[in-house]
Parts: sequence; structure tokens; C-alpha cells
Amino acid sequence: MACCIDAELSSCAQTVVDTLRRAGLAVITAESCTAGLLAAALSHGTDASECLHGGFVVYTKAQKSAALGVDAGILQTQGSVNAEVARQMAEGALRQSRANVAVAITGVLGPNPDEDNNPPGVVYMAAARSGEPTEVVRHDFGKREPDVVRRETVLKALDLLLRTVERGGRASC
Amino acid sequence: MACCIDAELSSCAQTVVDTLRRAGLAVITAESCTAGLLAAALSHGTDASECLHGGFVVYTKAQKSAALGVDAGILQTQGSVNAEVARQMAEGALRQSRANVAVAITGVLGPNPDEDNNPPGVVYMAAARSGEPTEVVRHDFGKREPDVVRRETVLKALDLLLRTVERGGRASC
Repeated sequence: MACCIDAELSSCAQTVVDTLRRAGLAVITAESCTAGLLAAALSHGTDASECLHGGFVVYTKAQKSAALGVDAGILQTQGSVNAEVARQMAEGALRQSRANVAVAITGVLGPNPDEDNNPPGVVYMAAARSGEPTEVVRHDFGKREPDVVRRETVLKALDLLLRTVERGGRASC
Repeated sequence: MACCIDAELSSCAQTVVDTLRRAGLAVITAESCTAGLLAAALSHGTDASECLHGGFVVYTKAQKSAALGVDAGILQTQGSVNAEVARQMAEGALRQSRANVAVAITGVLGPNPDEDNNPPGVVYMAAARSGEPTEVVRHDFGKREPDVVRRETVLKALDLLLRTVERGGRASC
């Protein structure tokens, strides 16, 4: 009876953990809609403790500001689901840890729009690496089962993390 | 194709979310070995956004100190798996958020002892509530599959959270 992380997620997470270890890098996560699932997936990897510092689950706007220093004015005027908030989450997580790579996720799993009327299925991710510009990507998974969007989001975040670690090289999981 | 959180975990999480909402309380998590799974389970509950502020995944000793202010001397001399670290994690999470209830988890999923030779299956949990003494409990799940210990740990943490919210009343999920 497996608990939580399915085989594909575990396999991708292991690829990321192996790649981080080879690169001598460590990661910190910053998650809103996935609420810790990315960090949990990474922790399933063998030897994850060598490259996973931890993460921040920032489910409310208040917690995004309190834990990661996300600008409260932007959250108020533009909501939580946009490129700037994703960027600030990733860079805030990097500041709050000894990790040298951070991945942030903020989006709407659905089935309904969020409180700021962002449509279900829209997810922004950011990858920050010490000394390099932060990359932000937008995904639109459409209006699907929240659990499907959740899983696809974690897979895309693992892939983004892999690309960030292997910048310039081939990357796929 | 469900992603991650099985029916029993989801059901328990929903009970906790409903109870928190009725009590007008909000929760923050602090997780080491479960690495975000408790927060992720809580986020599956309908209307979780009304009572889940977020959480801290503190996988390394350094991150326990950086994010939650856990005493570095205790981590160095006594390791990460003990009542005092669990207590400091829960109280640190409470300080770092607007939540009024915090649950912390630190333990060894196994299959091997941790770096400080704590045996697999031993997990400490703490529940902190503003203005009340923090409760710490120890579980020994024995040497079992890590995924089984992980799942049992999240279930016990959900139950501890429920009892903390309903102090004085009946509580079971």
C-alpha cells in the first residue's frame, strides 16, 4: 500500500535528486497551490537529505509575505497568481536558506477560480539559482480535475528544477 | 487517476479542516521527515484555504534553525529527533505566521537509522496553540517500509491536530 507519491513522480524526483547531487547543489522549495507536495516528492529520492534543504508552504497571501517577503502590495493589487509573485517566492526562499537553487509554484488547481478570479489550471513557476537571473514560466493546464492539475504541476516543477540544475545541457525526466 | 493523497488521509484531513473552521482557528505545519505531506494532505480539504496558512519543510538541521529558530546547539548535541526539537519547531512555526495552531513532526522513516543513530520508526510530534502549553508525543512505528511509517505519521499528526483544536472534547478521525 503506497502512501502518496506515485511511481512517475518518484522516478522524476529521483532523477532530480541524482542530478542535484552530481552538481553539488541543494534545493529549497516555495509552494502555494501544491502545498508541500513537491518537497514531499523530492524527499522520496534516495539520498535526498544531501540535496533537499526543505521548503516553504505559503498557502495564504499573509504567509507569502511573512515567510518569503513577497510584496504585500503586489499580492493585494495583482493577486497571488502571476510571474512577479512566483519570482519573489523563489528568490525569497533562496534568501531564507543555505540552498543554491529554489523552485516556486503559485497557481489555481481549480475547479473554481481563485479569490482574485484567476482561472483554474493557470500555474506560474519560478526557478532561482544563486548569481543567475530567475526564470519564470506560465502553464495553463485548463479546467481539469484538481488532482490532475496538482500532479502535472509537480511534474513540470521537477522538470524546471532539472533544467535549472543542468542549464545548458539536456534535461528531461 | 488520483495523484497523491489516499482516501483515508483525505477524509481525516477534511475532518480536521472542518473542525478548524468551526473553531475559527488556522494552522501552520512544521515538517521534517514527512517533508510537506501533512500540509499537502490538509490542502486537499474543501475550504482548506480558510484555515491553512501554510507550513515549513525543514529537512536539514540548518533549515530547522534558519526557518524556525531551532537551537543549533541542541541539534548538534542531541540530534533532530527528540521532544525539545519537536517543541521548538512547533513554537517556531507559530511565531513565523498568523496561525494560532501549529503541528510539528520530526522523526526517522527508515529503513536505516538517521545520522545521529536514532532508530527507524521513531517520530516526535508537537502541537502548539497560542497561549497554551505545547504538547509533545512520541511514536515508535518500528522498522517498517518508510512509506508506511510516512503515512502512519501523517495520520497521527492529523489526529494530534484534531485533539489540539478540540481540547477537552471528543476527537477522532
